[in-house]
Amino acid sequence: MKIAVIHGSTRINGNTEYLTYQAVPKEKGTHLYLRDYNIKPIIDERHTEEGFTKVDDDLNELIDRVLEHDIFLFSTPIYWYSMSGPMKTFLDRWSQILRDSAYPDFREDLKKKVAYLIAVGGDTPTIKGLPLVQQFNYICQFYSMPFGGYVIGKASRPGDIVHDKRALHQASLLLEKHLQQGE
Amino acid sequence: MKIAVIHGSTRINGNTEYLTYQAVPKEKGTHLYLRDYNIKPIIDERHTEEGFTKVDDDLNELIDRVLEHDIFLFSTPIYWYSMSGPMKTFLDRWSQILRDSAYPDFREDLKKKVAYLIAVGGDTPTIKGLPLVQQFNYICQFYSMPFGGYVIGKASRPGDIVHDKRALHQASLLLEKHLQQGE
Amino acid sequence: MKIAVIHGSTRINGNTEYLTYQAVPKEKGTHLYLRDYNIKPIIDERHTEEGFTKVDDDLNELIDRVLEHDIFLFSTPIYWYSMSGPMKTFLDRWSQILRDSAYPDFREDLKKKVAYLIAVGGDTPTIKGLPLVQQFNYICQFYSMPFGGYVIGKASRPGDIVHDKRALHQASLLLEKHLQQGE
Amino acid sequence: MKIAVIHGSTRINGNTEYLTYQAVPKEKGTHLYLRDYNIKPIIDERHTEEGFTKVDDDLNELIDRVLEHDIFLFSTPIYWYSMSGPMKTFLDRWSQILRDSAYPDFREDLKKKVAYLIAVGGDTPTIKGLPLVQQFNYICQFYSMPFGGYVIGKASRPGDIVHDKRALHQASLLLEKHLQQGE
Repeated sequence: MKIAVIHGSTRINGNTEYLTYQAVPKEKGTHLYLRDYNIKPIIDERHTEEGFTKVDDDLNELIDRVLEHDIFLFSTPIYWYSMSGPMKTFLDRWSQILRDSAYPDFREDLKKKVAYLIAVGGDTPTIKGLPLVQQFNYICQFYSMPFGGYVIGKASRPGDIVHDKRALHQASLLLEKHLQQGE
Repeated sequence: MKIAVIHGSTRINGNTEYLTYQAVPKEKGTHLYLRDYNIKPIIDERHTEEGFTKVDDDLNELIDRVLEHDIFLFSTPIYWYSMSGPMKTFLDRWSQILRDSAYPDFREDLKKKVAYLIAVGGDTPTIKGLPLVQQFNYICQFYSMPFGGYVIGKASRPGDIVHDKRALHQASLLLEKHLQQGE
Repeated sequence: MKIAVIHGSTRINGNTEYLTYQAVPKEKGTHLYLRDYNIKPIIDERHTEEGFTKVDDDLNELIDRVLEHDIFLFSTPIYWYSMSGPMKTFLDRWSQILRDSAYPDFREDLKKKVAYLIAVGGDTPTIKGLPLVQQFNYICQFYSMPFGGYVIGKASRPGDIVHDKRALHQASLLLEKHLQQGE
Repeated sequence: MKIAVIHGSTRINGNTEYLTYQAVPKEKGTHLYLRDYNIKPIIDERHTEEGFTKVDDDLNELIDRVLEHDIFLFSTPIYWYSMSGPMKTFLDRWSQILRDSAYPDFREDLKKKVAYLIAVGGDTPTIKGLPLVQQFNYICQFYSMPFGGYVIGKASRPGDIVHDKRALHQASLLLEKHLQQGE
């Protein structure tokens, strides 16, 4: 099973990344950092006659890369009780991919994937991060993409995450069965 | 009471805007459209020694404009069960404003405001939009800014919103008491 | 369309009932008050060899009465951010009905009904009542019973509900289309 | 730290109990089974002149027993996406305790406790059990009683829980720090 990790953090080597590497070490799976890609915000043209205007950015390259994998791990810091802006911007653009003739099987493809979520926040994240989990679940439902599980970590200052032993252990189990099957 | 409406839609005259004008007609309050502003995504530098790097965009101009008002109405289409990317990008940057020496009283200022939310989605929004409401409530709690209420509308295709009589009526009541007190 | 209103309040003429009568006046539909029925708590025997032991109470009588209708309006005060104990006790016992040979078509029957919810609480119910709405939605999903809508009212002391004009108006619209079609 | 475990299951040795014993073994803490107590449903008399009528059941005995402890672990099967009826009935009656002159310090007492939750369900509980967690958090907030954490297990048929290794491990950590400090 090939694993793609989509990192939504804007900070290198932050708490969210640390926790995520417990789930999928750097040498396992493909680590994609949204901050390395130029992804423009969506302009909603679902209902214009001509459909979406072609956008000159890295979206399609990134989508192509992601779709080569079987398992998607979305990794995001919790900003304002929700996913990070870059992660949101990326996911918003999936509305465009859904209508892009270059991806006629996008929905069908996603049904065969499994999605996971790792989210890290500072303000009681195991409670206040639950709406984010619920939203993520709705996204998976929309695509009929199984939602394999999630881990919520607690950390504010750099390095804090090492103290969240519960989250670290949960993360180490999260994709265990996929890792054992080899990359 | 001066009302600022912060529009998060990327589409002009879409369903979300229509519903929002029921709450605050164009000639009442100040309508600010995020799509008219260049707001860059946050780069999380909360924990770097030098703090946030100055960003060359329209954020401060927009924040200044918003802060001139007493009531904030956030208006967003529901994209993937959450606020729109532009709205998220805007709110993420509040983390930077919180640490910007140009806004020493930002938190104190917000305590005196009242926030409202209008959100419009196509996929059972009165259920699947609830996590968004909960997140919005957490944001208000963070700032100790009263959350005055919300309206969720249902619409997909352009113009659909006129059929959601429940939402239209609710919207017309949402800020009624503030409007009566004059602009 | 025949409407059954299932009242979960333990107090006669309380705020929840008042709001509910805005949706379904006393003379429209069938008003059933759980406090008038002896419904015993479930004893989970789903997995015992003999199945559920027959219980001597009013459950079956009440279920029979409810099933004569097309529309179910569940009306409950919010006790501790959830439905009232009597309402919970009643719904828990549906697990037993599902396995009762006297109701071979229970699930099929429910698919043809439409459920509504009215809930009234004192502590920021339009936020803190949302998990209850989500749970109610899951129940409807389980039975593939359409969830027609909900109204959340705010009231603590007797009579308070008359001040929640938003909820009163919403309630008056909630089942409007069913009432117009006659009882 | 003295630990009281309040078991809301109606089934002896069910999945919920099994998971709970991972958190607090039988010989540690005090295990109280709601099914062994006669707790009557609340009749809401908060607003009657005379206040609540004295109820002849085991509530006060149970409350007294619970209050002798520092840590409360609420353990409930998930029935219809919420706590079990017996657990709900018990918690509803806390409204009466709040107004019982025999417990003048009930609220103050609870502030010094720490609450935990274990919940086990069969239908995607790590998603559909989240509203229950949110409600439980609101209850803790009401009493200003810290919410120490929660574990959600997945199981339907008797014995299923042994396969939820994630939950078993999480449960074993849940009250670890309190157990180490001795009973």
